[in-house]
Formats: sequence, C-alpha cells, structure tokens
Amino acid sequence: MMRSGKDAYQPRPEHHFTFGLWTVGNPGRDPFGEPVRPALAPTTIVRKLAELGAYGVNLHDNDLVPSGSTAAERDKIVREFKQALADSGLKVPMATTNLFSDPAFKDGAFTSRDARVRAFALQKSMTAIDLGVELGATTYVCWGGREGVETNAAKDPRTALGWYRDAINYLCEYVRSQRYDLRFALEAKPNEPRGDIYLATTGHMLAFIYTLDHPEMVGVNPEVAHERMAGLDFSHAVAQALEAGKLFHIDLNGQQVGRFDQDLRFGSDDVKGAFFLVKLLEDAQWPGMRHFDSHAYRTEDEAGVWDFAAGSMRTYLILKEKVAQFNADAEIQQLLKETGGPTAAPSFDELRHASFDLAALRKRGYAYERLDQLTMELLLGVR
Amino acid sequence: MMRSGKDAYQPRPEHHFTFGLWTVGNPGRDPFGEPVRPALAPTTIVRKLAELGAYGVNLHDNDLVPSGSTAAERDKIVREFKQALADSGLKVPMATTNLFSDPAFKDGAFTSRDARVRAFALQKSMTAIDLGVELGATTYVCWGGREGVETNAAKDPRTALGWYRDAINYLCEYVRSQRYDLRFALEAKPNEPRGDIYLATTGHMLAFIYTLDHPEMVGVNPEVAHERMAGLDFSHAVAQALEAGKLFHIDLNGQQVGRFDQDLRFGSDDVKGAFFLVKLLEDAQWPGMRHFDSHAYRTEDEAGVWDFAAGSMRTYLILKEKVAQFNADAEIQQLLKETGGPTAAPSFDELRHASFDLAALRKRGYAYERLDQLTMELLLGVR
Amino acid sequence: MMRSGKDAYQPRPEHHFTFGLWTVGNPGRDPFGEPVRPALAPTTIVRKLAELGAYGVNLHDNDLVPSGSTAAERDKIVREFKQALADSGLKVPMATTNLFSDPAFKDGAFTSRDARVRAFALQKSMTAIDLGVELGATTYVCWGGREGVETNAAKDPRTALGWYRDAINYLCEYVRSQRYDLRFALEAKPNEPRGDIYLATTGHMLAFIYTLDHPEMVGVNPEVAHERMAGLDFSHAVAQALEAGKLFHIDLNGQQVGRFDQDLRFGSDDVKGAFFLVKLLEDAQWPGMRHFDSHAYRTEDEAGVWDFAAGSMRTYLILKEKVAQFNADAEIQQLLKETGGPTAAPSFDELRHASFDLAALRKRGYAYERLDQLTMELLLGVR
Amino acid sequence: MMRSGKDAYQPRPEHHFTFGLWTVGNPGRDPFGEPVRPALAPTTIVRKLAELGAYGVNLHDNDLVPSGSTAAERDKIVREFKQALADSGLKVPMATTNLFSDPAFKDGAFTSRDARVRAFALQKSMTAIDLGVELGATTYVCWGGREGVETNAAKDPRTALGWYRDAINYLCEYVRSQRYDLRFALEAKPNEPRGDIYLATTGHMLAFIYTLDHPEMVGVNPEVAHERMAGLDFSHAVAQALEAGKLFHIDLNGQQVGRFDQDLRFGSDDVKGAFFLVKLLEDAQWPGMRHFDSHAYRTEDEAGVWDFAAGSMRTYLILKEKVAQFNADAEIQQLLKETGGPTAAPSFDELRHASFDLAALRKRGYAYERLDQLTMELLLGVR
Repeated sequence: MMRSGKDAYQPRPEHHFTFGLWTVGNPGRDPFGEPVRPALAPTTIVRKLAELGAYGVNLHDNDLVPSGSTAAERDKIVREFKQALADSGLKVPMATTNLFSDPAFKDGAFTSRDARVRAFALQKSMTAIDLGVELGATTYVCWGGREGVETNAAKDPRTALGWYRDAINYLCEYVRSQRYDLRFALEAKPNEPRGDIYLATTGHMLAFIYTLDHPEMVGVNPEVAHERMAGLDFSHAVAQALEAGKLFHIDLNGQQVGRFDQDLRFGSDDVKGAFFLVKLLEDAQWPGMRHFDSHAYRTEDEAGVWDFAAGSMRTYLILKEKVAQFNADAEIQQLLKETGGPTAAPSFDELRHASFDLAALRKRGYAYERLDQLTMELLLGVR
Repeated sequence: MMRSGKDAYQPRPEHHFTFGLWTVGNPGRDPFGEPVRPALAPTTIVRKLAELGAYGVNLHDNDLVPSGSTAAERDKIVREFKQALADSGLKVPMATTNLFSDPAFKDGAFTSRDARVRAFALQKSMTAIDLGVELGATTYVCWGGREGVETNAAKDPRTALGWYRDAINYLCEYVRSQRYDLRFALEAKPNEPRGDIYLATTGHMLAFIYTLDHPEMVGVNPEVAHERMAGLDFSHAVAQALEAGKLFHIDLNGQQVGRFDQDLRFGSDDVKGAFFLVKLLEDAQWPGMRHFDSHAYRTEDEAGVWDFAAGSMRTYLILKEKVAQFNADAEIQQLLKETGGPTAAPSFDELRHASFDLAALRKRGYAYERLDQLTMELLLGVR
Repeated sequence: MMRSGKDAYQPRPEHHFTFGLWTVGNPGRDPFGEPVRPALAPTTIVRKLAELGAYGVNLHDNDLVPSGSTAAERDKIVREFKQALADSGLKVPMATTNLFSDPAFKDGAFTSRDARVRAFALQKSMTAIDLGVELGATTYVCWGGREGVETNAAKDPRTALGWYRDAINYLCEYVRSQRYDLRFALEAKPNEPRGDIYLATTGHMLAFIYTLDHPEMVGVNPEVAHERMAGLDFSHAVAQALEAGKLFHIDLNGQQVGRFDQDLRFGSDDVKGAFFLVKLLEDAQWPGMRHFDSHAYRTEDEAGVWDFAAGSMRTYLILKEKVAQFNADAEIQQLLKETGGPTAAPSFDELRHASFDLAALRKRGYAYERLDQLTMELLLGVR
Repeated sequence: MMRSGKDAYQPRPEHHFTFGLWTVGNPGRDPFGEPVRPALAPTTIVRKLAELGAYGVNLHDNDLVPSGSTAAERDKIVREFKQALADSGLKVPMATTNLFSDPAFKDGAFTSRDARVRAFALQKSMTAIDLGVELGATTYVCWGGREGVETNAAKDPRTALGWYRDAINYLCEYVRSQRYDLRFALEAKPNEPRGDIYLATTGHMLAFIYTLDHPEMVGVNPEVAHERMAGLDFSHAVAQALEAGKLFHIDLNGQQVGRFDQDLRFGSDDVKGAFFLVKLLEDAQWPGMRHFDSHAYRTEDEAGVWDFAAGSMRTYLILKEKVAQFNADAEIQQLLKETGGPTAAPSFDELRHASFDLAALRKRGYAYERLDQLTMELLLGVR
C-alpha cells in the first residue's frame, strides 16, 4: 500500500490547478430557476482560490469587466484585480471571450448569418485578447457556444465553416501582428445552447485546425462534459490531441452521458473515466493547466462552493496517487506485459508469405476481466 | 476504518448470488463476430459456480434443453442437471423462457401479428414453466425481447399491449391451475433487439402490472443495463419497485448510457451507481437473489469467464462493506441529519394561513457537495 | 389523393389546440444567454392566440400573477385576464403551479429535505389550484421539476417517493374538500433541471398513480420532449396511458434524443413519430386538449413567435389529414390485414397438445419494409 | 409544383447507387436471434441489383471469398462473379476487408495487443486490396470495428493510435508499391462491437488523416448511423469532409440516436436529416457513390429485402427532387437572402474603431421558425 498520508492530497500551486471566475462565481441560475447565490467579487475569488492551493484563475472578458463599462471603470477593475493577483500569487494562465450571452449572438458569433454580428464578434475578441495578455495569459480559449443551428434550413454548413475559419485566421493574424505570446485552444461541444453546434467534438475541432493559416498557433481545449454529452470516451480524444502535440489546455469536470451540460465536480461522476484521464495526463507528464470548468450544485450556498472547489483538486490528487500505485503494481504490470511477438514491420513480400497460427490467436484470452477487476479494487482502495 | 480483512469479500451461499447458464456460458458471439469460446456444459457451470461461492443458477428452457430435443433426451439432460445440483448444493431459484432466438419470433412472441406465433409462445412458456418448477424455481422471469417494432406502421401499440396482457393473464391462470408456488417477474428493456420494445422501462412495466387479472402474482425484474441504456437512474426505479412491494428479482450488471446492451461485470462501470444500488438493497434488507445477468468481455478465454464471475460477487461484497461504513460514518450521518422542521400534515386551514421565512429557505445550503465528496472518498478507500 | 385544400389546415377552436402563457411568452433566456425578446402581456397573448384559432391558454400561477403580488394586484390582474378571455372566447382548460423557479425549491418542492419547503410547496399549490378553478380549469398538471437529486447521497429515494405521495394525496384531499371539478395530470421528465428527477418517465408516473389514495382523480400528462430525452418511443407511452384510461392531458413539442430539453415546434423534429402520435390520438378519438408545450427558437423576434404558434397547429392538421389518408389507403390496409389465424384463447390442454408449422412461421415475412416505405411516401406527399 | 411524375423516382446507373453484398445479403442474425433468411449467392445479388437500377456492388473480401478457401476455389468464385458483373453491367467501385468477424481479432486488428494479430490483419488487408483492385475498385474502405477497448486498463490509447497509424501507412505504401489506382476511405464509429472504438467520429478520423505519411491518399467514409449513434448532426460532419476535399465515400442509412447500430433503410428515420444530407451532396455536385450500408428489418423474407433496396434508392430520388424544389422556392430563397452587411475583412485598426448598432442586432429576428415550417411543408408535400 503506497498511501502517503492525508496531506498528499493538499493542493499546491505546482499542481497547476486553475478555476474560472465563472465557475466558483456561478450563482446557480438555470433554465428553470433564478440564482440561488449572490455574485462573488473577482478579488474575493482570487484570495479564496489562493488559500485553497490553486495556481491560477481564468476568465471571460465579461467575468471581470461587465459589458458596457466605461474605459475608466474598466481600468479600475483591472487594476484592483491585478493587485489581488499580486497579493495572492495567483496567475491568469488562460483567458477567453464571452460570445454567447449577448442577444446579438443569438444566431452565432463568428457564424451568424448577419455580417455585422460576425464583425462585432471579432472586435470583442480582439479587445478580450488584449485584456488576457495584459493579465499574463498565454493561452486563449475559443468556445463557439452559439456557432450552430436549430434547423439546417438556416445556412449551408460549408458556408458556416468558412466563416468560422476566417474568424480564427483573422485572430491568429491579429496576435501575430501584436507579437503576443499567445496560443489558441479551441473547445468543442456537440449541442446546448444551440440545437447542434458546428465542430461538435474534439476530433472535428482537431481536423479543422489543420485547415487554418497558422495551425501551429492553434490547439484544442477538450472538456470532459462536452465529450461525454455525446457518449464518447474522453481519454481517447485527449490521447489523440496529446499525440498530435495539440493539447493546449483541458477542462476538467463531470457529466452524465446524453443530457444537458452538467459541469459536475471532477470525479463525482464516472470516477473510472477520471482515473484513466489522470493516468494519461500524468504518464505523459503533460505540463499544462488542470482547469476545473464546473460549478457547485444549485443546492449549495457559498460554503458549498468552496467545498466543491477543494473537492475538485483533492480528487485529482487522490487519483494521481492511484495512478502511481497502478504503475507500481506488479500483478497489474505483469498482466500488461504478457502479449508478444515481433513488432518490426516486415517487407511486403515477407508478410505476404508469412503464416500465422490462427488457431492459437483465436483461442487465446487477454485477461482483461482480471485486469479491470484489479483496477477497480485499486480504485476502491481495497488493494 | 471498518475494513474487515480480505475474506470479508469471499462469497458464500447466504449472500444469494446467482448467475444464468447463459451468462457464464456466453460464447462471445456478437453482431459482428463469431463465438470465441466453446460452449460449457450446464453441469460444468453448476460445479464451478458452487466452487466460487454462488447460491444458485438460473436458466432459459433452451439453455438446458436444446430446442427440438426428444422427450427422452430432455429427461436425460434434466436428470443429470438435477444430479449436479444435488452434488453441489446449488439451487435454481429462477427460470425463464427463450422467446427471442427462434426466427418464428421475428415479429414478437406474445405480440406477434401472427396469432399462431402468439399461441406457440404461450405453449413454449407453459412447458418452460413446468421445467422451472420441476427444478425448484419460485420466480419466473418474462423478458419480452421481441415484443416491439421497427416501425409503428406495423401495429397499433394499444392492440399489442392488449395481446401482451392476455398472455400474462393466461400464464398466471395456468400457474394457478397447476397450484405452482411461482411468481412472475417482468423485465423491461427500451430497445435491442427490436427498434423499440413495448413497456420500455421498469416504470412502464410496473404500471402494466396493475392492469392484470392477478397483479399480486406479478412483480418486476429490473436490470441495471436496461435502465441505463435509457440514461435513467437505476436505483430510483428499484426504490419505486421496492416501495410498492414489487421487487421480485433483480439483474445486476454494468452498462454505459445510450448504447448497445453491454452486460458488463457488475461495478465495472458507474461504480457510484452500483454503490447506491447496493445501499438500497442492503438498507431495505431485501431478501431476494442478487442475479448477475452479464458476461465476460469477448476478449476472454474460459479463465477470464471465471475471473468475471468471481469479480462480480467480490465487488458486491466490497460495496456492501462500504455501505456499512457510510451508515456508520459520523460526519456523513451528521450531514444527513441537519434538515428539519415539523413533518405532520397541517389542516388545510392551518396551511393556508401559515407563513414561511422564505428568505431563509432561499438562502440556506444543503451541503451536498461536501456529502458527495465524503461519499466519493469513502468509495475510493481514502476515508 | 384526399387532400382537401389549404384551409383544411386552418386551426379552429373545435380542434382543441392550447398553448401556455409561458410558451408563446418565452423570452428566449437560456443557460448561456440573456432574454432576446420582451415579455408579452397575458392579455396580448390571449387575443393573439384567439386570432390564430386556438381553443385555450394554460398557465402556471406565476405566469399570470407575479410572485409577491398583493391581493389587490392579484385581483386586478385576474379581472383583466378574465375580461380578455371573455372578449376572445379563449378558455383556460388547464392550470399548474410553478414549483421550480423560486430558490426555495432548490432541493425540491414536495421532496425537499427541508420540511418547511415541502409545506410551502403545498400551500403554493393550494392557492394556485384555487386560481385555476376560478379561471375554469378542469385539469391540474403537476410537473415536479425540482423533485430529484444530483447525488443519491442526499436522500433515500424511498423516502422521497413517500413525501411525493403524501403531497399528491394531500392535494387530492384538498380538491375533494372544496368539491372542485378538477383532475390531476402528473408529468414526468428524466432530468433537467435536476441531475435525475424522480418518476422519470410516463411509465414510472403511471405506476405511482396506482399507489395513491385516490387514483381515479389522477392521470398523466405525457410530453413528447421528456420521453424523447430518454430515447423512448413516445407513442408507446401514450398508448399505455390511453389504454389505462389515464391520458388526462398531453404536451406536444419536438425534441432530439439524449440532450437538453429543447421544446421544439411540434413536428419540426421526428415528423414520423409525430405522425404516429397524431394517428393514435385521432384513431382513439381522444377528446382532450392538444397542448403545445414548446417555444420559438431563440433566434426569433415576436413575429417568429407567432410563426411558431401557427406552424405548430398547422402541422398537426397536416398530419391529421395524412392519418385519414393512411386509414383509407387500400394497399396499406391490405398489408395490415394479411396476418391470420384464430385468436380465441385455447384451454391449457388444447394448447399443450397443439402442433405448429414452425417451418412456415420461421420462413414467413411481414412486409414491414414495404409498409414503412408506403408510409414514408404518404408522409412525403408523393403517394 | 415541380413534381415530375412517378418515374422521376426510378433509379438508374447514373445516380451512382451502390449496395454491399453484406447489406442485401444480410440474413437477419442479431445478438438475440438466429438468421431468418437464407444466404443469397453474390451472383444473384448482382443480377437483382442491376435489375433494380443500381450502379454497383461493394464487398468485404469474405463476402465473396469465404475464409479458408483454396486458391482454386477463390479463382472460380471470382471468375463467376466477374462474369455476373459483365453480364449485368454492375460495377465494384469499393472494396474493404473484414477485420472483425474472425475470433483472432477479438482485441483489435491493427490495434490488437498481440503483434501477430496486427501482422495478420495487414496480410489479410493486402490480399483483400489485391482482390478489390482486380474487381475494379478505386476506393478502399477501412472500418476498424474491433479497434477499441472495453476497459482502458488494457492499453494506452496513444500506443493504440500509433499502431493504427503504422497500419494505414503500411497499406498506403503497399498501394503505392503496386501502383494501384486506389484511395482509402476511413470509417469511424463510436462503439459496437467494442465498448469504445478509437477515432470515434468522422471528425476524429479526419484529424488522424493529417498525421499520416500520405494524407493525400486518404479520406473518410462517413456513415449516417455511426454519427447518429453519438447524437451528432451528420450533415455537419459531411460538410466538413466535403470542404476539406476528404469525402471519398459515404454510407447512407438510418439510425435512432443513442442506441445499437440499426442500419435502417435510408430516410426511414430522421427524414429531415436525410433531406439536408441529400441537399448537401447535390448542391455540392459531389460525384461519388451513394452507398446504402443498411439492411432489411429482421421481420422480412427475401421479398422484403428487395422492397428495402428499392425503397432506399427511391427515397433518395424523392428527396433529391425536393432539394430542387427548395432551391427554386421563391419565398424560401427570399428568407435566406435577407441578412446582410459588408463581408470584406476590415483591417485591425478599422475594426477596433468600428461601432455597431447593438440594439438593432439584439432585436432583430432571423425568421427561422418560418423557414423551417416552410421546409417541413415542402417535405410533407403540401407546399
């Protein structure tokens, strides 16, 4: 048993845990109900997250600077926020633009059928990029929550994809023109708030990136909940992004398959999936931010919000310890070894004339029931 | 820490674990591939399950007696099977009819549009009931796997429900006429192999029972996988059946939401859901059979099958121990207590004039994030 | 071709089409965005619906009387609303209580763990019932949108179901005590806004009704979207309710399977399913209200709202005409006839000794591909 | 009304409709039941498809040449098949390898943990490619039905993706070495028969292609059913592939969201989605094969199989006619026009200083309810 004492689960800045202002600040409004919690000041959030052991805080432009603020108001807000960051040591590694709340974006931002809306979305993004860079962000997330349709009668999806590409290309060019040290991370989601959102999964988004003018500036920001809404294995999508050098950011949370976007506390649903995700990130020694894009249940008051935040980090660290235990477990590792055969690629002629003991290949078992049972027992802490 | 040593997880007959001949005997055929394992003789299965600590074995008529057997063959098979039961001490608590494999049932058994097929299905069920009773079964499961449609053009669902009811009424009457000590447990499934199956969930099935001639003879057999295919919370359906005195049997396994019927090892998927299910059954001191209606992955040889069977029972016992731990955990129980207020029903007049401190009710939190995090830590064995 | 001219699709009061104040009045707020349309006055809605040919308008208490209104304000609002009804001829056949918007209901209304909330929910329901009866409603819908959990750690589902039953029993007793001519229609939904809602489908709700003190007063209000969220065939659930005499109300709309509650315009998604639903209701000559519980896309302004309302009714009438065409189509009816055999129930002895031509039953086809293709061509208007 | 007479729906070779030997030849076996139809000889299928108006027939190696055939048997089968093609004028535009039926592939073909299986899968593919080219195929589909896992404990997904890439690179190299005129079309599927299949959607597959040695040789083969199993909008994925020049083949069928792989007759489910798919292919003047990868319901005999095949093509042609009607409908086209504004990309400075009439953008509606209603009426044939 490798358990290392309870303070092994105490988060510290080097663990790279981050939260969004909009996550711990979520007031609990939903489609059928009013807010249940008062808004928290961004500076309060910063102080509290630092106390809990987080590394950083991320934000949409309007999380910090309300829509319609004057330049003076904006400057005061930003100055106070920077002071809170300096006081607490918290960083802003990632920023993003809110392109979904304003009614102007009802038919999309970069893919609205109204060209004025598309232009406004670009303008808003440029301003938000400036703000993010000012706060120190080096990753810029784009989530196109309104880039979709309720009916395909509305637009040809090829046209919409073209508009989408134009927008990302424009913003890449803008970042280059400003010589910002900033990379984009595109975030996919299959639906909600739109009936169907374009580039519905991390896979579609990765493919889209290869068609951009500057693919090297652009990667993905996969989110557990978004891939699980479509019933897909999240770790497979993350592995594909990792392997392609395109995992620029990640959104950790929990979600039940095939329903509304729940943004549950990381590890509170599908803990086995969470374990294999942590295994992938830790085995790959991935250096990025472990961002929790989730919020407390609507049943909670402010104390519940901080329980939620602390629990998110703590569960990650518990799972990280279990990953080390899995990798050190002799019986598990033995089961993973016992496959075999030569792996060098044969010539076409060699392969054409190779003969295989098909009876043996058909008969052999892979002992995955045993392997999975051992994994479950390790997860349940009885191994 | 209440952990009670590894042999706490050793299954014994008093735990009431049962398997179907068709589950451990599953040869690994699927829609895209041929069998990967040889068939196991029923007598072999009986001996092996007894060794592993199971209480009983269940069967479809044709799991034991192949379709088309002569009376003499049938008698020989049954005699040898009973001898194996006697030798091993294993029971047959439940039996059922295969009304889905034969091409004659292509459009349904009790709900086929061909009246001859409906009659044949009744005849086959009567014979199978006789066999089940002969083997000692006191529960008879009906799963109407072919009772559905690919297109609603084929039949009016009201007509089909009427045929279904006629069939169950007929079989209840038959059991009464034979003075058998036998209750029916109806099993719902939303789809597969039919596009849509009638009485799609445990709820629909429960409601249907109240319309029968002898509702007291009929309960439900909820299955984890079937309710999860529709994305429903399984423990809620089981609670409803329990509360109505209608939980006559249960099928334990694992399943991912919104996909083909996987019949995974119990607890290998959604272990949190499995925990709350075990909690419900154990808290209710439900005396019934814990039947595993699942099978080993198709990657497995025979050794993998027994790993699968042993793991199913072991995981149940691990979770049962955790239920006791949850119930004894002072912090958790405290969180569950701190709600309040009087619960006696007021008169209409009293209630009409009652005043409520709405501000307080709107502001209060329920500490469910903390409660859920403690539950997860208990499940993960770090509490 | 039976097509009967375009005015065949003109809705008239005798078609029994109804809308909720909250449906055409929906301002387009969603989890990620602010309202896009101004609120419409209830009296405006009444006038406009009457113009479009609707029969009635339904409401939650707070759709008409805002939470926190004084008695005088309430009376003025109700008086003006009744005047608008009288002027327009529109009826209020159904009313319901909003037990989900107020933060006090964050952990449920009838199933909150706080007994004060449960009592407040009853009080609010009694007041709303009084209002509904005053407006002429004879059906009272109960949708328990907050009756559920995000984590089963929070409460035992058996306890919650008990509280739920107590509440419905209490309200039935209240209605009896007041000698109101009012029946209850319970509405199920699997999830959203709660992670999992108790009594998740029409089936679970039907079963629950049989356990009430006055089951004869209580039926169901199935909703297309809610059953489709769980991927279930809606017409099967409606058929079960119809056949049990429990279809007291119905909510018509559209929904894609396995995602957030979309409440789309009736017939705009899964038009084939909509056709078979209309067929069921019309073939059964069901006399109830065709209520559209849906709203315009968030891309729409007020003109789009009325397009949505008119389109909902028009599509129903188009499908109704196609039902008549289906029932009169000689080729289709011939395909539906050609099954056969005697249907009288044989005695147990007769059946035991009956012999079946299994080879013929296995070989025969049912011509459902042809039947479905003809149905599709009829739907597509090319037959 | 542009309807052009019933023979407008008569399929002809120039429509490029194709079927697989395995589709019309499907004997109706499923996970719960035995075959219901006898096998059809490939030469019979060829003759019958030609009669019905198809352009071609596609095949897996073992659809034509049973596994374990001698060289002489193989040559005789191929010779007779070619004669049937020549006699009927039918083509073989696409071929593929069966890498899923043989128990040897139980843990994957290209991604099996057993290196011998991976080598055997390559050998089998090379032989099948030779056969396909001999029959005239210029497109080679790869569907990795077994390339996945039931538990992620079994393998690191990065390793599996690496093996997958090695395999496709090897086969590309083989095709180049043989100077074959052949392109690969990779087909994604989220699950079934494996618990989770790698490269789960058309998006993931597209992204994978960009990481290959010869991406120009490789495109995708999207399948309606596979994308719908995950609840995704199929036409969006096809649009992305089209726009990237990667739509090399397409599999047409029908499928309900979130359930087992149904392979329903094209257009029999989600006819609206089918319409927008046909619109996309026809508007793009896509020259490829319209391949129906589907099969008759299991309720059908052989006559039902040909009803199914004829209906698939007929529905495509009905929808194609409706696409022309949509494109020519003045009211619909007017609604699609009325958006506006300049679309040329402004300079960064211009955009930074641009001002927008946000009030107008927030207020405007898009008339999509009207547009969608008109589309539905057109689809229903009442426009």
